[in-house]
Amino acid sequence: MLTRIDHIGIACHDLDATVEFYRTTYGFEVFHTEVNEEQGVREAMLKINETSDGGASYLQLLEPTREDSAVGKWLAKNGEGVHHIAFGTADVDGDAAEIRGKGVRVLYDEPRRGSMGSRITFLHPKDCHGVLTELVTSAAVESAEH
Amino acid sequence: MLTRIDHIGIACHDLDATVEFYRTTYGFEVFHTEVNEEQGVREAMLKINETSDGGASYLQLLEPTREDSAVGKWLAKNGEGVHHIAFGTADVDGDAAEIRGKGVRVLYDEPRRGSMGSRITFLHPKDCHGVLTELVTSAAVESAEH
Repeated sequence: MLTRIDHIGIACHDLDATVEFYRTTYGFEVFHTEVNEEQGVREAMLKINETSDGGASYLQLLEPTREDSAVGKWLAKNGEGVHHIAFGTADVDGDAAEIRGKGVRVLYDEPRRGSMGSRITFLHPKDCHGVLTELVTSAAVESAEH
Repeated sequence: MLTRIDHIGIACHDLDATVEFYRTTYGFEVFHTEVNEEQGVREAMLKINETSDGGASYLQLLEPTREDSAVGKWLAKNGEGVHHIAFGTADVDGDAAEIRGKGVRVLYDEPRRGSMGSRITFLHPKDCHGVLTELVTSAAVESAEH
């Protein structure tokens, strides 16, 4: 069951400049940064608020580390902007299986590693009215359950 | 000060079909619907979670009521997808003035009426790394303060 807006993923050409824009314009600070070589991105998470399910909502700023990554190709086509949205769940495996059973294409056979040790998968935007949609189970929730 | 992700605005061709997709795929229910003739949209708000500032985060599904509305023109160019993101604040007037002072174009001289009696303004996407960004003060927050 999806219980929060976990993050909004925003693709940018220059992560440092975009982080600086969000800091100086709104006062949003960087909560976490990492490089995800599998996804081909360098990213910064800006925590905006906590959520009623015990999680939080972030902006995820994404700079491609290579042009042939999914985000790199998306940026070349679309320019900077909102790349995907992500919903938080305590059970990404179960929810992905249930949603796949409803005929929505799930992009990974098994969830992969996302930000901050989370486990993630994506739903095909053409099956979601044009919205690339991510499902996330955060590391903290997994630790609490096991 | 912006204290939450208030909503993600998603443009669609057929509001009823898109509402049905979100209900059957994820179990998200409609919290509120309205027509905003000034914005030229018919919309449904789906409440996803509550937030640590006393507000909530929604998906806002938007169907244009006329082709020459901002959302209608955007849809014709881009197809369905994420149209804008919105941050919640207790003081949209003050924050808009402060952000304008930093050189970011604010699209309205004065905030206008948004969903559920809120007061809203927008920031120019070209000044925000490609993201059309809305600032929202909800009616509930205003009532509590006055």
